[in-house]
Amino acid sequence: MNIEIWSIGKENESFIDEGIAHYFKKTKPYNPVELVILQTPKKSATTDIEKTKQQEEELILKRLEPQYYLVLLDERGKMLSSPQWAQQFQQMMNQGVKTVVLLIGGAYGVSDKVRAEAKQVWSLSNLVFPHQLVRLILAEQVYRAFSILNNSPYHHS
Amino acid sequence: MNIEIWSIGKENESFIDEGIAHYFKKTKPYNPVELVILQTPKKSATTDIEKTKQQEEELILKRLEPQYYLVLLDERGKMLSSPQWAQQFQQMMNQGVKTVVLLIGGAYGVSDKVRAEAKQVWSLSNLVFPHQLVRLILAEQVYRAFSILNNSPYHHS
Repeated sequence: MNIEIWSIGKENESFIDEGIAHYFKKTKPYNPVELVILQTPKKSATTDIEKTKQQEEELILKRLEPQYYLVLLDERGKMLSSPQWAQQFQQMMNQGVKTVVLLIGGAYGVSDKVRAEAKQVWSLSNLVFPHQLVRLILAEQVYRAFSILNNSPYHHS
Repeated sequence: MNIEIWSIGKENESFIDEGIAHYFKKTKPYNPVELVILQTPKKSATTDIEKTKQQEEELILKRLEPQYYLVLLDERGKMLSSPQWAQQFQQMMNQGVKTVVLLIGGAYGVSDKVRAEAKQVWSLSNLVFPHQLVRLILAEQVYRAFSILNNSPYHHS
């Protein structure tokens, strides 16, 4: 099963890039995972929130294939534990999901149309994190989930 | 008010160090913040969980002065929002707290004696994060809290 982390916005700070590479390398023996940064074209930049969300919606929906399993990361979502993340990935594999997308929305969240495509909505915390840090946290949690599924000693709760 | 993040364990990976420096630099104009890594001596390393917790307890209590305001970070704690972190720091300042310690326990949590010293217990998430990532998350949340208190545009929820 391919895991893709999709994130709207800017390229990573170097420390975020390094951290993500650190966890992706550890996850690779278990399961492939990659980060896809979706950038709206600079020339179309706007301060209009609705227009921004619509531009982001186009970027997301253009890339999203019907068979992809979309998980939206959103403060209003379900707050799972790390073992529950592992269970969820296991269930997706059991269902024969080929590609799961973990989508981090833009600064203003995602449009209703994107939200409607999501099979699940997960929340990381009651705290608000910057998008780049969310990318790093997801990279670590995906590694943790597959460590749990593979009985590695990395996760001891 | 001085903010100190205390953490049991190893030195940081370079990407964590870089990330913490990134947020500390941004926080400095608002409020001083530093990271204190507490390391148990290597020669006394043990696989006995209770003994480890006791060694860590000594390290913590030796450093903890009676006037310090201790906040323990623990999965069983209260899950606050980022604006609530800001409010908490404001209340501590109003109470005349000079030094607040945000304590990240060791791999097995903290001893009951350390827990009894804590004025508050906060939880970051239902997810389990590695200690190094918790240090980085705390660095960012402290910056976010002081951005909120200073009406900076960094936090828009």
